[in-house]
Amino acid sequence: MHKEDDDPDNTMRILIATDVHLGYADKDPIRGDDSLTTFEEILQIAKKNNVDFILNGGDLFHDNKPSRRILHGCMTLLRKYCFGDKPCPIEYLSDQAVDFGHTSFPQVNYEDPNLNVAIPFFSVHGNHDDPAGAGNLCTLDLLSSAGLVNFFGRYLSLEKIEVKPVLLKKGTTQLALYGLGSIRDERLHRMFVHNNIQFVRPKEDTGDWFNLFVIHQNRSKHGATNYIPEQFLANFLDLVFWGHEHECLIDPVWNSLQEFFVTQPGSPIATSLSKGETAPKHVGILKIRGKEMKIEKIPLETVRQFYFEELVLQDTSLSPDDPKCEDKVEKYCEEKVEEMLYQSGMERSGNRRQPKEPLIRLRVDYTGGFSTANPIKFGQKFIGRLANPRDILLFTHKPIRSIKDCE
Amino acid sequence: MHKEDDDPDNTMRILIATDVHLGYADKDPIRGDDSLTTFEEILQIAKKNNVDFILNGGDLFHDNKPSRRILHGCMTLLRKYCFGDKPCPIEYLSDQAVDFGHTSFPQVNYEDPNLNVAIPFFSVHGNHDDPAGAGNLCTLDLLSSAGLVNFFGRYLSLEKIEVKPVLLKKGTTQLALYGLGSIRDERLHRMFVHNNIQFVRPKEDTGDWFNLFVIHQNRSKHGATNYIPEQFLANFLDLVFWGHEHECLIDPVWNSLQEFFVTQPGSPIATSLSKGETAPKHVGILKIRGKEMKIEKIPLETVRQFYFEELVLQDTSLSPDDPKCEDKVEKYCEEKVEEMLYQSGMERSGNRRQPKEPLIRLRVDYTGGFSTANPIKFGQKFIGRLANPRDILLFTHKPIRSIKDCE
Ligand SMILES: [Mn+2]
Ligand SMILES: [Mn+2]
Ligand SMILES: [Mn+2]
Ligand SMILES: [Mn+2]
Repeated sequence: MHKEDDDPDNTMRILIATDVHLGYADKDPIRGDDSLTTFEEILQIAKKNNVDFILNGGDLFHDNKPSRRILHGCMTLLRKYCFGDKPCPIEYLSDQAVDFGHTSFPQVNYEDPNLNVAIPFFSVHGNHDDPAGAGNLCTLDLLSSAGLVNFFGRYLSLEKIEVKPVLLKKGTTQLALYGLGSIRDERLHRMFVHNNIQFVRPKEDTGDWFNLFVIHQNRSKHGATNYIPEQFLANFLDLVFWGHEHECLIDPVWNSLQEFFVTQPGSPIATSLSKGETAPKHVGILKIRGKEMKIEKIPLETVRQFYFEELVLQDTSLSPDDPKCEDKVEKYCEEKVEEMLYQSGMERSGNRRQPKEPLIRLRVDYTGGFSTANPIKFGQKFIGRLANPRDILLFTHKPIRSIKDCE
Repeated sequence: MHKEDDDPDNTMRILIATDVHLGYADKDPIRGDDSLTTFEEILQIAKKNNVDFILNGGDLFHDNKPSRRILHGCMTLLRKYCFGDKPCPIEYLSDQAVDFGHTSFPQVNYEDPNLNVAIPFFSVHGNHDDPAGAGNLCTLDLLSSAGLVNFFGRYLSLEKIEVKPVLLKKGTTQLALYGLGSIRDERLHRMFVHNNIQFVRPKEDTGDWFNLFVIHQNRSKHGATNYIPEQFLANFLDLVFWGHEHECLIDPVWNSLQEFFVTQPGSPIATSLSKGETAPKHVGILKIRGKEMKIEKIPLETVRQFYFEELVLQDTSLSPDDPKCEDKVEKYCEEKVEEMLYQSGMERSGNRRQPKEPLIRLRVDYTGGFSTANPIKFGQKFIGRLANPRDILLFTHKPIRSIKDCE
């Protein structure tokens, strides 16, 4: 797709983001605000890039029942950035009473005459913020009842689902937006196998719609049936927006078998100190014109830096027989951490809202008779300089088995 | 005050309600929706009576952390009834950045260009829904962040408070609306005694304002210092709106010492099965013109009926020495309950949303050697016919002391 900027009246501009996990580490005195900070950055990016709407792929909240502080922060940000005078140029063509029939105001928020919505926020629910408890409600229902979001892709049947698209139009571009909130992988897998997931296509101009599907499931295989293979998805789709997977793989990948692209924006917050979380975090501006699309990657500048290294003591000059081995291991680790801290200082984004203290994880393989250090005591030397002094070091050991056993 | 209806342009019309306790008996399968039902009725009354705004005296919520179902229900009702096209005819004269400086949008909701507010909802917080936890927020902060309420009367100092009025004007009528959210009675008592509660009066036209004060504290004396005597309150006030006390005493009572009226609207929901809760529940339409006011009582029709009787076995023809006494006591109680059920059937409001099953409490004084019945077993006969089968009967006993000891 070329020159989309030459044809703005016919080009939809959609901010895509997912797995914001608002409230992750809510009670951590250092990291407690990280998720709200980056959510604000995302909303600012949406505004600055003049998008037509925001599309979120689930897990907006980390906890099923987020704290009042987090809910308040989220509502405040949505009202601040999504309400305003800019008219939304998107025509809504499908039946709102159907698309939002599960909510208390079955209407898209930007057509509510009582609300002045500048940037509509559309979201499906994830597994972290799925409906539960009395009334079978989720936090998106609260936001929806206040008119702050458009909660779609919620289906009540656990047997058979007809996924009906939200139909949107801007100029000559027509978007069929399919959404499916998180369902237990095994169950959804089975439903696909039994042909109980049907995608309903628009009757008119069937071939002219750009078909986008938002899904929040395991994409990578964890066992035979607790993921959703891409080949399960309808091949009339043009783009699959994959939520739930946290690694940022936002550049569209062509599935030549299914003949659709897949984009996986990933989570903007490190919810674990694993290597996958070190990939730079992005959101995207998805531009759709006719049947063509393009995703502009926008790096997030307020994400707390995270550095991860692995150290195999056997591969160093250290010896477990050295009487001063323990001290030397500790010293060695200290130097590594200092190097990572130095690197983090060099690689700051420049955004004043990026938190100062990085996350540092040093994974130490002590196989070969080395002794371990006390991670908590070790971390005390770094208090104030990094965000996770209590768990910088993680000691691991190779399995005490022969290679044959392993195979 | 006469003929207020002849001068609508200069008459403020305010719906006054308090202690709605949304979420009371939230998990009770029979009574769980009572509070939402009556809240909806109150909002309907506000709309039908074309009030300029709603004024709530605290304890809008029963629990400090209401369930998602209740919060969702409340937000849905506020958006449904308080948003709309009717313009609010009230001029806002005081500094909104001060009056709402503690909120995330320091602005009255009906002047927010992004919200179409028909009936502004003003509230102070009560002791049930007071600020607590991370961020020191309360549920009204959530509603406020969504633009659904105007949360006022929140002061952060626990040492000295200058109570500043919200200044409102309609035609020639000027209202100085003072509010003070719930504070621990002993503390507020002490602050008054030490002259640390100051009411700030408008500089201009000081004598011309109608001065209304909303307070949420103990009014009746529970020990020397854990209530607020009316004589503590500034005597320039014209009307005190007393929240927290649940009995409906909404007709204004003249305090001749202080020269102000006091109205106590009371709670629309029976949160205990005590005699005080049998008084009919009302909200009021407070009409203010110049320095005159009048309160029109509106009976609530959806409140679950509640009947309370006391029975002293010693005063009946029953004898504890009768070998069939236990059966006869039970029979006697059954007949009483049947009478009350009959009465409840005769006295229904006619509103189709009034719950069918009444609350029934029979307090049985068994002094004199009578044995008690098992209340749970007793109630099983009435399942489906009343709302509280498990605790219809409450057995009491006179203190086993001489009258002298009692004095
Ligand atoms: Mn997630
Ligand atoms: Mn997920
Ligand atoms: Mn109360
Ligand atoms: Mn109270």
